[in-house]
Amino acid sequence: MSKGFLVSLEGPEGAGKTSVLEALLPILEEKGVEVLTTREPGGVLIGEKIREVILDPSHTQMDAKTELLLYIASRRQHLVEKVLPALEAGKLVIMDRFIDSSVAYQGFGRGLDIEAIDWLNQFATDGLKPDLTLYFDIEVEEGLARIAANSDREVNRLDLEGLDLHKKVRQGYLSLLDKEGNRIVKIDASLPLEQVVETTNAVLFDGMGLAK
Amino acid sequence: MSKGFLVSLEGPEGAGKTSVLEALLPILEEKGVEVLTTREPGGVLIGEKIREVILDPSHTQMDAKTELLLYIASRRQHLVEKVLPALEAGKLVIMDRFIDSSVAYQGFGRGLDIEAIDWLNQFATDGLKPDLTLYFDIEVEEGLARIAANSDREVNRLDLEGLDLHKKVRQGYLSLLDKEGNRIVKIDASLPLEQVVETTNAVLFDGMGLAK
Repeated sequence: MSKGFLVSLEGPEGAGKTSVLEALLPILEEKGVEVLTTREPGGVLIGEKIREVILDPSHTQMDAKTELLLYIASRRQHLVEKVLPALEAGKLVIMDRFIDSSVAYQGFGRGLDIEAIDWLNQFATDGLKPDLTLYFDIEVEEGLARIAANSDREVNRLDLEGLDLHKKVRQGYLSLLDKEGNRIVKIDASLPLEQVVETTNAVLFDGMGLAK
Repeated sequence: MSKGFLVSLEGPEGAGKTSVLEALLPILEEKGVEVLTTREPGGVLIGEKIREVILDPSHTQMDAKTELLLYIASRRQHLVEKVLPALEAGKLVIMDRFIDSSVAYQGFGRGLDIEAIDWLNQFATDGLKPDLTLYFDIEVEEGLARIAANSDREVNRLDLEGLDLHKKVRQGYLSLLDKEGNRIVKIDASLPLEQVVETTNAVLFDGMGLAK
């Protein structure tokens, strides 16, 4: 079995996962923790090609099941090529989005069957789940306002979807939190970044059994 | 429910499915049958993009499960955009490869779990199966020799796999034939083309309830 520790970061658009991660890395480095930070498709060639197909704004005809299957395919490749070797090497692997995103976006968001998504996640990961999932919770309107204010970030096909989708996504996350409270920890991402980083740090170190 | 008739053509490499189909079309036309012939990804933009990822010869790192998920994603999109509308319009749809190819190639060929492939096919098609499947049977060595002799056809990543894979694929087809003999009809593709066309014609017209 894997010797590393797998953490996933989850949350609706604009929750600030990336900023929190950037602030956390020097702290982890100082502790001497070997970290791999990654997000699907994570620079894995085949995964990147799949992601191009998913996010191409001209692909307006994409069926919801096709989209889901492509995310799952990209997940599989990224896991096999990048995540599993890092866990084998004993690293802390921090993934920006993982299995719960499919449940929240394609399940609650698009209305695809949750059990089917669970099956597909299980198939792609051979049952591997994060040791700890940090769920960054924020009101949908606030998250989207943050994205709009960040002109550096390219707008992709999913950002253009309506507010309604994003609200369903958040409901999905809250429902997952209800169901898997042992694995998923909710963090209030509406607070100032410094406070969010401090909370995240505490939760992460606690989960890994490290002193703060 | 659909008003058309769905036929899939299956078989190992070089069985001559395409040549048989070309010979059949004028006969069907003469009978006044409205036909759509297609193969995944069938000119469907998103499906074509997915196929490019699958067949790119540089993608040597592709995991077997990733490959399967990509085929299934392409299947879903092709079905929704092209096959279902044609069936709704009452057409005879002839598909060059469909669900059984995944069982034969990824299941028997690559050793992926058959039940998982059945689940994925069911997910992608919402349970739609061909009304009739024509399985063109040929010895692996003979089929590959035919491909080698046909210099017009581009060699893709799958052609470069070993003989062993192709033998397992044929075993897969024979096993499917055992299991689903009501739907799948075996046609001896080693015979001269004219005879194969005649047999295929008879089986197809019988299946569709048309006089020959």
